Amino acid sequence: MDRMEFLSSLRTSSDSRMVLLVLDGLGGLPHPDTGLTELESARTPNLDALARESACGLVHAVGPGITPGSGPAHMALFGYDPVRHEVGRGVLSALGVGMDLGPEDIAARVNFCTVENGVITDRRAGRISTEENARLCEKLSAIRLDGLEAVIRPEKEHRAALVLRGQGLSERISDTDPQRTGVPPLTCRPLVDGDTAAERTASLVNRYLDEASRILADEHPANMLLTRGFARKPDIPHMTDLYGIRAGAVATYPMYRAVARLVGMELVETGASFADQVEALAGAWEDYEYFFIHYKYTDSRGEDGDFEAKVACIEEVDRSIPRILELRPDVLVVTGDHSTPALLGAHSWHPSPLLFHSRWERKDEVDSFGERACARGMLGTFPAVDLLPMMLASARRLTKFGA
Amino acid sequence: MDRMEFLSSLRTSSDSRMVLLVLDGLGGLPHPDTGLTELESARTPNLDALARESACGLVHAVGPGITPGSGPAHMALFGYDPVRHEVGRGVLSALGVGMDLGPEDIAARVNFCTVENGVITDRRAGRISTEENARLCEKLSAIRLDGLEAVIRPEKEHRAALVLRGQGLSERISDTDPQRTGVPPLTCRPLVDGDTAAERTASLVNRYLDEASRILADEHPANMLLTRGFARKPDIPHMTDLYGIRAGAVATYPMYRAVARLVGMELVETGASFADQVEALAGAWEDYEYFFIHYKYTDSRGEDGDFEAKVACIEEVDRSIPRILELRPDVLVVTGDHSTPALLGAHSWHPSPLLFHSRWERKDEVDSFGERACARGMLGTFPAVDLLPMMLASARRLTKFGA
Repeated sequence: MDRMEFLSSLRTSSDSRMVLLVLDGLGGLPHPDTGLTELESARTPNLDALARESACGLVHAVGPGITPGSGPAHMALFGYDPVRHEVGRGVLSALGVGMDLGPEDIAARVNFCTVENGVITDRRAGRISTEENARLCEKLSAIRLDGLEAVIRPEKEHRAALVLRGQGLSERISDTDPQRTGVPPLTCRPLVDGDTAAERTASLVNRYLDEASRILADEHPANMLLTRGFARKPDIPHMTDLYGIRAGAVATYPMYRAVARLVGMELVETGASFADQVEALAGAWEDYEYFFIHYKYTDSRGEDGDFEAKVACIEEVDRSIPRILELRPDVLVVTGDHSTPALLGAHSWHPSPLLFHSRWERKDEVDSFGERACARGMLGTFPAVDLLPMMLASARRLTKFGA
Repeated sequence: MDRMEFLSSLRTSSDSRMVLLVLDGLGGLPHPDTGLTELESARTPNLDALARESACGLVHAVGPGITPGSGPAHMALFGYDPVRHEVGRGVLSALGVGMDLGPEDIAARVNFCTVENGVITDRRAGRISTEENARLCEKLSAIRLDGLEAVIRPEKEHRAALVLRGQGLSERISDTDPQRTGVPPLTCRPLVDGDTAAERTASLVNRYLDEASRILADEHPANMLLTRGFARKPDIPHMTDLYGIRAGAVATYPMYRAVARLVGMELVETGASFADQVEALAGAWEDYEYFFIHYKYTDSRGEDGDFEAKVACIEEVDRSIPRILELRPDVLVVTGDHSTPALLGAHSWHPSPLLFHSRWERKDEVDSFGERACARGMLGTFPAVDLLPMMLASARRLTKFGA
């Protein structure tokens, strides 16, 4: 029996409410001048007070030394083995813009790009506006190919999602995005020679891209498409079914909305600011038992390498913590999906600080929310897949195993 | 996908240098008079200063409660599951003395011993000199058997390695060393009845040992051979291939040189003292990206039960730490392969203290290098197989997993 089936076999009902608050890329590295990380530098009176009333620890999304993308990191926080349940980039793009994916459909992430004299000069077509993107996607909807239904939808700026529907398609095909400029777009090919379904799909993709090139020929700067991450929706059991919970996601960015949908969550309508997100959480309080609330900008500012701006983002979240506590969640976990130290300007492998607040959790002696403080916490350093069972337990949603 | 394939799939290149310094049997138990372990008793200003600038923890080579031999303990430190990738004693002996092993060859560890009136009176033949050993191995090279090429080479004192080459040999045969005195040497037998390849090999081994007995009949005290640990070289992917690194081993003892060769390391020429080893490290600095430097005597003095001598060994290593730091390694890890408490006079199951020094590692509040100090460290207690991914990550040699 796998770990999810085992957990599912222990499920029991309760009226409790669980909240998982993820500050994307929360963990950091010490600033050379102060020896303090972003989180340790931030003025966070509310999170510090919460840490004093919580059990704390550090959490690895995938494993020691492994730098996770946000997809696998969130899958782990939702209780899924992130290596076994790998989700392709195309699937995250398609679900993120609200497209439905059948079991046979193939999805890809698309960039509008600029091609001049046959070579790519800008992989993002000058980051065209989302409106321009929508107009171009509408033009591309005229493409008709025998044996293939192709639907393209705008994401933000130069990003789009492409879904291919037809008989006997295969996702085992290569990217056409060479991930650099100064070279032509690649031809789509089967990943393995002699894979006839993949050969046929690659040939359809190439015909689609030829048509797209013709349709976009007079456009500027977005006169071509680059595709990558062809994938089929993985067969993932919904956490909502497994554990008998209704789950709502309060997330503003497409990719996180996509991962949430993939595991069975419903999307809660929300405004853009974190205060808006917390109000959306409050508004949906009676509709769900498990809430995932995702804050993006700690990661964005970390990737920018902007230490101070990341500190300010953490402080913005801190100000809304009292409003979350007013809802009296039975379990409240605050953590990151991975670290994004401003000093690195990128995702990193360092475990994320975590606080676990519940009436039924032991409290430790951690008196502030930070990486080193959490390292002294009662929960130690643990893998993220263990978080969901801990949350279900403290929510009194798991019964005893064995006599 | 297994963990090594997974890690390998994430490899990326870098110009960084990693050093793993293993003090064999480093960990200990508190002296009853002082309450301090060997490491806690040693005056180690350099290691203490390094610990203050590092992340610290405790590392289990195989698992809680498991006392590892040096072979599996080192395999784990090099990133291999030590239970899955078990290496036979014979293979370590043969590789340790520089013999090559083909995929079909069978290797055994040999002791010269003393037999009187048909029974073993000394399993080590009075620890004959290495020179005497070499003379006897030369005599034994005269043995000729149909269908078997047998090569014997001296190790240190009474120890030797035997390699058998031929068609259809099997390693599934029993030891002839009964591991005690007062009994005759055992007859080699197949481990499982009816295993014809093993039956044939055992019969060849017995004929070889009969011949050896005749050739050594007039020698004293070494008038017979005991064989054990028949093994074939395991099919182990080289860490150098998996992770795209050149690796050099600075080790003086045959067995550690053998394990290093087995995982793809090259041997760096070195003098006998630890200061010599550090100079050898410095001399090879441009040739490798990963260095394994092995210090034997902490284990030897622990096995002797000599607490004070083990303390002195740790202090000897401490004096050379500044020279290692002058090389400015990007990652420097100092740890043991297992504990060898002088109070036990043997390997033990206690986790090894570890310090991890890198620009990209979080620093904790540990202010000295010792077992109890490391137990309060940021890295917690973790399995040794996780060390290599942590080192590769801090050396910026692993890319992100997933979108």
